[in-house]
Amino acid sequence: MSTMPNWLLKRAGLTPRRKALVFGRKSWSFEEMLHIVLETADNLAFLPIFKGSRAAVLMSNRPETVFIIHALQQIGAEVVFLNSRLTPSEWAFQLNDCKADILLFEKSFEKSVQQLSVTTKTVCINRLPKETGQLKIREEFNLDEVCSIMYTSGTTGKPKGVLQTYGNHWWSAAGSVLNLGLREDDMWLCTVPLYHISGFSILLRSVIYGIPVMLMDKFDEKKVNDALSSGKVTIMSAVSSMLNRMLSELGDETYHPNFRCLLLGGGPAPRPLLESCKKKNIPVYQTYGMTETVSQIVTLSPEDSLVKIGSAGKPLFPFQLKIMNEGREAAPLEPGEIVVRGPNVTPGYLNRETANKTSFQDGWFSTGDIGYLDEDGYVFVLDRRSDLIISGGENIYPAEIEEVLLAHPSVIEAGVTGVADEKWGQVPYAFIVSRDDISEERLVDFCRERLAPYKVPKKFIHVGELPKNGANKLVRRELVQFLK
Amino acid sequence: MSTMPNWLLKRAGLTPRRKALVFGRKSWSFEEMLHIVLETADNLAFLPIFKGSRAAVLMSNRPETVFIIHALQQIGAEVVFLNSRLTPSEWAFQLNDCKADILLFEKSFEKSVQQLSVTTKTVCINRLPKETGQLKIREEFNLDEVCSIMYTSGTTGKPKGVLQTYGNHWWSAAGSVLNLGLREDDMWLCTVPLYHISGFSILLRSVIYGIPVMLMDKFDEKKVNDALSSGKVTIMSAVSSMLNRMLSELGDETYHPNFRCLLLGGGPAPRPLLESCKKKNIPVYQTYGMTETVSQIVTLSPEDSLVKIGSAGKPLFPFQLKIMNEGREAAPLEPGEIVVRGPNVTPGYLNRETANKTSFQDGWFSTGDIGYLDEDGYVFVLDRRSDLIISGGENIYPAEIEEVLLAHPSVIEAGVTGVADEKWGQVPYAFIVSRDDISEERLVDFCRERLAPYKVPKKFIHVGELPKNGANKLVRRELVQFLK
Repeated sequence: MSTMPNWLLKRAGLTPRRKALVFGRKSWSFEEMLHIVLETADNLAFLPIFKGSRAAVLMSNRPETVFIIHALQQIGAEVVFLNSRLTPSEWAFQLNDCKADILLFEKSFEKSVQQLSVTTKTVCINRLPKETGQLKIREEFNLDEVCSIMYTSGTTGKPKGVLQTYGNHWWSAAGSVLNLGLREDDMWLCTVPLYHISGFSILLRSVIYGIPVMLMDKFDEKKVNDALSSGKVTIMSAVSSMLNRMLSELGDETYHPNFRCLLLGGGPAPRPLLESCKKKNIPVYQTYGMTETVSQIVTLSPEDSLVKIGSAGKPLFPFQLKIMNEGREAAPLEPGEIVVRGPNVTPGYLNRETANKTSFQDGWFSTGDIGYLDEDGYVFVLDRRSDLIISGGENIYPAEIEEVLLAHPSVIEAGVTGVADEKWGQVPYAFIVSRDDISEERLVDFCRERLAPYKVPKKFIHVGELPKNGANKLVRRELVQFLK
Repeated sequence: MSTMPNWLLKRAGLTPRRKALVFGRKSWSFEEMLHIVLETADNLAFLPIFKGSRAAVLMSNRPETVFIIHALQQIGAEVVFLNSRLTPSEWAFQLNDCKADILLFEKSFEKSVQQLSVTTKTVCINRLPKETGQLKIREEFNLDEVCSIMYTSGTTGKPKGVLQTYGNHWWSAAGSVLNLGLREDDMWLCTVPLYHISGFSILLRSVIYGIPVMLMDKFDEKKVNDALSSGKVTIMSAVSSMLNRMLSELGDETYHPNFRCLLLGGGPAPRPLLESCKKKNIPVYQTYGMTETVSQIVTLSPEDSLVKIGSAGKPLFPFQLKIMNEGREAAPLEPGEIVVRGPNVTPGYLNRETANKTSFQDGWFSTGDIGYLDEDGYVFVLDRRSDLIISGGENIYPAEIEEVLLAHPSVIEAGVTGVADEKWGQVPYAFIVSRDDISEERLVDFCRERLAPYKVPKKFIHVGELPKNGANKLVRRELVQFLK
């Protein structure tokens, strides 16, 4: 069976008066949202956008973005999500790569859009046609159909467009609900960008689960803490750097007991951070996922959130995971490449025959990430493969060193990367944001006590801020820019 | 994508120490249950039972039944559920019809099994081989594979075996969780027979959701009320007659607030019963489903459970429903046949080409039941088509008359059926269990005030008990036996 009822139409039919979206002081019920979305879809149809059109969006976290994304689903157009932090030349690459039919952009991006060298038609969403009467309501969604395309950061080579089907999104939502549960009073806070899977998946879950999204235009620790202390928000998606800032702002306070789940993604989390949360009874669920697995594939269970610190958990109910090392399944505790399988996994990259052949085998997707399973079957993600530092034949995982550095009272943020070295091939360099002028000598001593000699960074560079992507994840490969 | 991880194996891996099954004072965790189930499966393999074998089970609501059913899934055998209330000749029909390879029965059925005239091998579960070492663990379930076969009561002609795939069960569980939600402390009380979809679906949901089943060997209102007052049980499946008995026994008390959902199936519920529950704040969710839809397909939402009394709700998130009248979709409030579609719907009846052609068209299944949609899209089930009484060209729905009778203070239970009549074709007769010797005259007066003249029963017959099936549903076609 490969069809389902049209999600938003069905949800608005089932629970019309439940809240769907909260933004500042405004809110919309599912019925109200459907009304706006159908009208918007009808307007968009006049551009024209058809079923099967490929429509890129360059918009920020605002209600209009939510309505337009849903409207494109109502038409049956594929949505290409452009990361608003990129440069016009990077956008142009993506628009050309996917041969987008149209680019819908918010007024604030107008100047940048004018610099684009693309043949794609561009339309500002403030100037949509006001005509209606064209739209044919889709009663059903086909689960094999492409819903969205997101380009991965791509540490080597050019970014690749990840195809995400309706079925991928459905199974992701189903897998998550069996882990996190679902309550009538749930509300999911979204401060992560809608153009990343972390944000977009919240929008879809809202419709599938029948719960509201509280949307914020950007991450602001004060506003987030207010929301989590109000008792209205029950679930939030975040990455470590956000959580760090939230905890600093929170001081000695803690959150409302209704706040039942902080889904912490975006790479391995530093242990000191997790331990601070444990002390405050903040229910952190470490999670592991990526654009290609269309959100989480591995997440801690409620009963493990405070006991298996450092682990991302186990693969969710419908999904499978194994660790491969030199062509065979690794033993417990033996690191290797994380390979996953499930109906949430992308059918592949757009027009990337070679990458598709390399990454997908017999239904299994090779993530390129390194991790291991412990004796109880918990997944520990060590690092992104591309971040692996190989020094004198020894493998060094930057996250391990960063974790040590973050445990030092003077260190606020830390990033480690490999730098070419005549003698060793590569050596680790550390880049830190510190509270005070802590000396290199003391940091070396601190590391030496906790790490094998070859893992101790050869240099410590004090910086004002670490490079991060739109999802607030550390971008290690950009650390070397500080050396220029 | 048509595979999923083996459910019980996956669940025991995800949450090994959570409770899986409670029976009296005993309980088993998922890890413990998996251990027993794998050993049992290994024993069964020696009978032999293979992947693809068709194994009938004739067992009561006991832990051993749960283990054997799960063990057959571990082997990949199809489970044919025999209703333990049937006669040996009825069992023989089903065993021959599906060409069962083996019948597994509980010791208490030994005498009856000896009377069976079948070629099927029969094995008492107390005499399973104790050998092990044969079983190959199935890592995955194929969603298109048949998991179970259940024979429908079949009001006309011989019973038909309904094929239920793993996918049907999965989607049913997924559809239900999006309506009812899921909490860490959920426990589902099962007093309905495991051989009906109402009971079996609870077993599978327990594994898929990671929550315990509290199993009772039979329905006992005192024990049920104790369980619902204890705060341990949060969800229960029941039919009207059970709920009636529970309320009588309950007296002026009510249930623990943890008890959050009484799923009320088995046909339209009498309004007085629903209103009594509303007064006591008992969260009744009327639901509509059948063996062919592999449990619920329509259920009330939490917010509607106390406001849309009498409705079965709306079709669950992944499912669709329409009302057909003379080949076209009926208008709101216009009764017609209920036709449904969804990945929960059976792929068809076993070896029943004609019935399959009649009942399935373009993915839509004609239920044979009569109902309507109100202006807000809520489903109201009027009656099973086969129970429809046609009298002088007018349609009479027995449930409507029963509802009126049940509103009379003297009437405890009521059943109405059509009896052949020279003048009118059919006329309704009422069969009642009463508190006192209420006269026919007073009942006629009571009905005349509430029903059109042609709907008033032509006879009122006092009986000690009404005929019910294993699921405690009134079997209207058996009422005529009182007239012999």
